[in-house]
Amino acid sequence: MKVLGFEASGLVASVALVEDDILLGEYTINHKRTHSKTLMPMLDELKKRLELDLESIDAIAVASGPGSYTGLRISSSTAKGLGMALNKPIVSVPTIDGLAYNMWGASGLVCPIMDARRKQVYTGLYRFEDSSMHTVKPQAVMDINELLSFICEMLNDNDSQVLFLGDGIKLYHDLIIERLENKADFAPAHINMNKASSVASLGIEYLRQGEVESPALHRPRYLKLSQAERERLDSGKNILEPSDGEFT
Amino acid sequence: MKVLGFEASGLVASVALVEDDILLGEYTINHKRTHSKTLMPMLDELKKRLELDLESIDAIAVASGPGSYTGLRISSSTAKGLGMALNKPIVSVPTIDGLAYNMWGASGLVCPIMDARRKQVYTGLYRFEDSSMHTVKPQAVMDINELLSFICEMLNDNDSQVLFLGDGIKLYHDLIIERLENKADFAPAHINMNKASSVASLGIEYLRQGEVESPALHRPRYLKLSQAERERLDSGKNILEPSDGEFT
Repeated sequence: MKVLGFEASGLVASVALVEDDILLGEYTINHKRTHSKTLMPMLDELKKRLELDLESIDAIAVASGPGSYTGLRISSSTAKGLGMALNKPIVSVPTIDGLAYNMWGASGLVCPIMDARRKQVYTGLYRFEDSSMHTVKPQAVMDINELLSFICEMLNDNDSQVLFLGDGIKLYHDLIIERLENKADFAPAHINMNKASSVASLGIEYLRQGEVESPALHRPRYLKLSQAERERLDSGKNILEPSDGEFT
Repeated sequence: MKVLGFEASGLVASVALVEDDILLGEYTINHKRTHSKTLMPMLDELKKRLELDLESIDAIAVASGPGSYTGLRISSSTAKGLGMALNKPIVSVPTIDGLAYNMWGASGLVCPIMDARRKQVYTGLYRFEDSSMHTVKPQAVMDINELLSFICEMLNDNDSQVLFLGDGIKLYHDLIIERLENKADFAPAHINMNKASSVASLGIEYLRQGEVESPALHRPRYLKLSQAERERLDSGKNILEPSDGEFT
């Protein structure tokens, strides 16, 4: 099975192609967040180098949220457009699950954190056992202090370490050390940020389980209201009922 | 510190740029092994997308062997050429160490295997503890059966799992299962092959420790004689003394 993966939920724009257990190609750029200008040209370059006929893919996996509104809209729109044109299903990979999957095989707890502004993070907790990723706490938006308190409470001798990764590390490194001391560890450069290869590789697992969406119905999952929506709610005027896709 | 990484020791051609704890970009192609035609254009594309001034890098990390003779010559020549032109040092990363570093944070033993033909593999054994990679058995060329016997003997209750990765998995998957049964596990697509991001990320560690070479003195480490050299030795004619760089 051949799966094309997109990741543009945060600082990184990334495209990858995975066939069964093999990564055929990956292109990742973490620079200036110009995803709208880079994602399609990156796919085009990858396609040429791999002599890829897009008709040959079985599905398109996309990091579907949470993350930046603009980034998610770019990657989901790209996936939807390609999926509709090629008549291929979409595999919607929760962003934090995809990021945690970077750490496949890790010992202890794995905790991705992505900055969600205002001291909040997009996060989740995961463990790797029996060749699989197990979700300890599903992805959610949380106050960073609330997350660290939660981790402190649940840590026991079996979980001697918590591995942190994601763009939130840069902001909260010192706070994490202060709260967890030597129980915290931080993933190094090659595996600490979002990657389309992880999304495509996890996407293949979902595809095998039949977890697919039609391109027409696929939409990003934001977890948070946008600033405009928040302000509208705060003002009490004409309160919008957010659609399922925008508020899950 | 900014390190440019190259990996072309096997099936994969890969270029990456790492700055301290951040992967700025990576381009990886696993297709037809036309490294001589792809490595420099991939660097050029990455350079443009990252608006990279090559003068700004601190060192060039390269997977320096073992691996395919042609692949190693291409990547080491590229690194040497750039290093000499830019007056930047080379960080020589043992190929198997770089591949193992994909699995940073893994529990149990990590065992990369790359096909070295004639039932031999390029391999090594590693463990991750205290945020670092520890070498249990340094990289070497070994008969696959000899390697598996060695692993069976050394396994104890603390090492309940051995994680295998690398292009040798495809050839020896069934043999590994036969010998190690449920103690063997296999890395999934996104982390089971050589990547320049791992080479650059580990390269930064070496650079911090001052482990650098001058571009003029850098050369690949092959671990095995080439077929032509073997045949010359077998024939007993005019036996060449291999240079240090070719026979380490």
